[in-house]
Amino acid sequence: MEEVIQAERAIDPPQAQTIAIPPAARPGDALDAIDTPSLILDLDAFEENLRTMQVLAERHGVALRPHAKAHKCPEIALRQIALGAAGICCQKVSEAVPFVAAGVRDILISNEVLGGAKLALLARLAKQAHMTVCADNPIAVEALSAMMVEHEASVGVLVELDIGQQRCGVQTPDEALALARLIRKLPNINFAGVQAYQGGVQHKRSLTQRQKASDKAARLIRQYLDAFAKADIECPVVSGGGTGTAAFDVASQVYTEIQAGTYAFMDTDYAGIDWGEALFFRHSLFLLGTVMSTPTSDRAIVDLGLKSTSAESGAPQLVGREGLRCVAVHDEHCILLASSRRNRPDVGTQLRLIPGHCDPTFNLHDSVVAMRGQHVEAVWPISARGLSR
Amino acid sequence: MEEVIQAERAIDPPQAQTIAIPPAARPGDALDAIDTPSLILDLDAFEENLRTMQVLAERHGVALRPHAKAHKCPEIALRQIALGAAGICCQKVSEAVPFVAAGVRDILISNEVLGGAKLALLARLAKQAHMTVCADNPIAVEALSAMMVEHEASVGVLVELDIGQQRCGVQTPDEALALARLIRKLPNINFAGVQAYQGGVQHKRSLTQRQKASDKAARLIRQYLDAFAKADIECPVVSGGGTGTAAFDVASQVYTEIQAGTYAFMDTDYAGIDWGEALFFRHSLFLLGTVMSTPTSDRAIVDLGLKSTSAESGAPQLVGREGLRCVAVHDEHCILLASSRRNRPDVGTQLRLIPGHCDPTFNLHDSVVAMRGQHVEAVWPISARGLSR
Repeated sequence: MEEVIQAERAIDPPQAQTIAIPPAARPGDALDAIDTPSLILDLDAFEENLRTMQVLAERHGVALRPHAKAHKCPEIALRQIALGAAGICCQKVSEAVPFVAAGVRDILISNEVLGGAKLALLARLAKQAHMTVCADNPIAVEALSAMMVEHEASVGVLVELDIGQQRCGVQTPDEALALARLIRKLPNINFAGVQAYQGGVQHKRSLTQRQKASDKAARLIRQYLDAFAKADIECPVVSGGGTGTAAFDVASQVYTEIQAGTYAFMDTDYAGIDWGEALFFRHSLFLLGTVMSTPTSDRAIVDLGLKSTSAESGAPQLVGREGLRCVAVHDEHCILLASSRRNRPDVGTQLRLIPGHCDPTFNLHDSVVAMRGQHVEAVWPISARGLSR
Repeated sequence: MEEVIQAERAIDPPQAQTIAIPPAARPGDALDAIDTPSLILDLDAFEENLRTMQVLAERHGVALRPHAKAHKCPEIALRQIALGAAGICCQKVSEAVPFVAAGVRDILISNEVLGGAKLALLARLAKQAHMTVCADNPIAVEALSAMMVEHEASVGVLVELDIGQQRCGVQTPDEALALARLIRKLPNINFAGVQAYQGGVQHKRSLTQRQKASDKAARLIRQYLDAFAKADIECPVVSGGGTGTAAFDVASQVYTEIQAGTYAFMDTDYAGIDWGEALFFRHSLFLLGTVMSTPTSDRAIVDLGLKSTSAESGAPQLVGREGLRCVAVHDEHCILLASSRRNRPDVGTQLRLIPGHCDPTFNLHDSVVAMRGQHVEAVWPISARGLSR
């Protein structure tokens, strides 16, 4: 096959000289020396966010297990763990690999795992770290046990409950009990508890609505826990919760650990909800762009688009710019409209924007530039970017 | 700084044993052995699409310069060139690097280029390949010339015209002439012609509307060309057009080259427009996913979401599945609803989906699995993925 491909090429073979693409920034660089588009992290705000959530969890005696799918960056996970996090969540098995390689030793795959390649990789990870996965059906549980036996590995299993998200998860306590019993029966897998995440309620705008939804989820979870207790099945872990409901989740007395992710960064989606006075997180994550064209007195074009920011939760939001808004996001451009010539930035102006949704935005970048004030402290690889299997 | 970071780590250093993530597929694999989520390319359909557009362009004596921002994959560009394409377009300077490394020797950066790091990289590329960039303002043109002089390199420059997209581009023939004169005056940059792309009209649903819009764009371009002729400024290249208007663009007699990209793959966005009988492209690009959970009799959850497919142009579309549709796209899941239990696929079922928008979807994947019928022929790296600077 390779020979056929070569014969098809009607052009010269590549020259020996390779061209390296320089990094977006180097430690010590000033903000205005950073090449754009780039993803930048305000370390002061980020560290304050990490402390705020850690303190909240500890005050209620609940473990914090931050979701690494939000950032996919081992350097960030290590800082969360250094502050007291009990480990991390990942959403995919391959996503966990760079975190295990970086030294993280307790990972919950907060998702169903199916298929030989994924299970074999999981078994290899389980020899280096304490791995737990979720399950909501017997087929997956049986395949999981068989693969762990084959590799002489073992993993914990949480039964996933559907507590209102209408995604994965068992639908009734009877189903949960049957699955827990199967897990307890099969070799090399250990029933560790339940996964109970309700994504939809995290983004409800009103604080009262979120409180009600969190209470409702907690009541549903209690029904499951009562069924386990009645059946004399110990259920040590109840994992769930998120940034939007964290204040209620930790106080609910049902969760043993909270899976929040976005709290460390904040995006326009989460910032748009009513936070009340209970809890406050700062924007720490920004897109840095440059105005590359000003074709008219009211229009400015920025050098970042869908390949640098997710847009399914809306256009990114400009920081500190009155009378200027992002009206369209193309593949590689944001179109800005100014209310007057005075508010239109000139060609070459650097702009900061807050992404609509941080998880898929991190997934577009190979690195994040960590800033201390106006200077670059480090450039961290987003090592799990693109690891979706 | 590094020492401080080390001291913060409260966990063991990584073990020496590294874990490699296996590839999604290997040449010779059957379809059902491919790990998911994956991006797959039906080579028969893809090659037919390449031939269809190449023949169309040649029949009208217009060059085809496919847009590599659509796929970011050198193996694909080499096949387009082998069939007769005049070179490729890239949208960013860094994006061009893997294509130059793979042997592509004629690249148009169909976009404004601004900033020292980008211009220095461009100068280095210009020593290995014929590079052309777009410009719509004197600031960029002067910085471009200065950097090329410094590096003893030279590039071609197209003046970008705004022919209705309301993005970048000069607004009047006078502005275009002034910029062309400046380019001709400055050293190490050569005025090569005009860039005239109208993205918005590509996606208009009705064939008649697209024809009208293409005609209108052509009339506008002619006004610019007349102004150049009157000023005795030769304008050898008129680059523009796209998949949606290609049939009209090639016949318009204004373009010397066509920049289509999606024609090779087709996505639901382009497939949704009325194609008439003039031109037909087949779907060649698919997402491959696996049903990982079937919590209810009408719901199935697939293992791919926003991190594997763009969703700003709508949810991906299922192939060959009656009574089943994708109702939501989460970060790592698609939620499918079936009209009946009979139409709900079981856990483990592989499904093919057509992405809504191919450009940002390619940008999420590290490789594309090239299929000949039901078997893997090759796995091609998407080498320019993430190169947005």
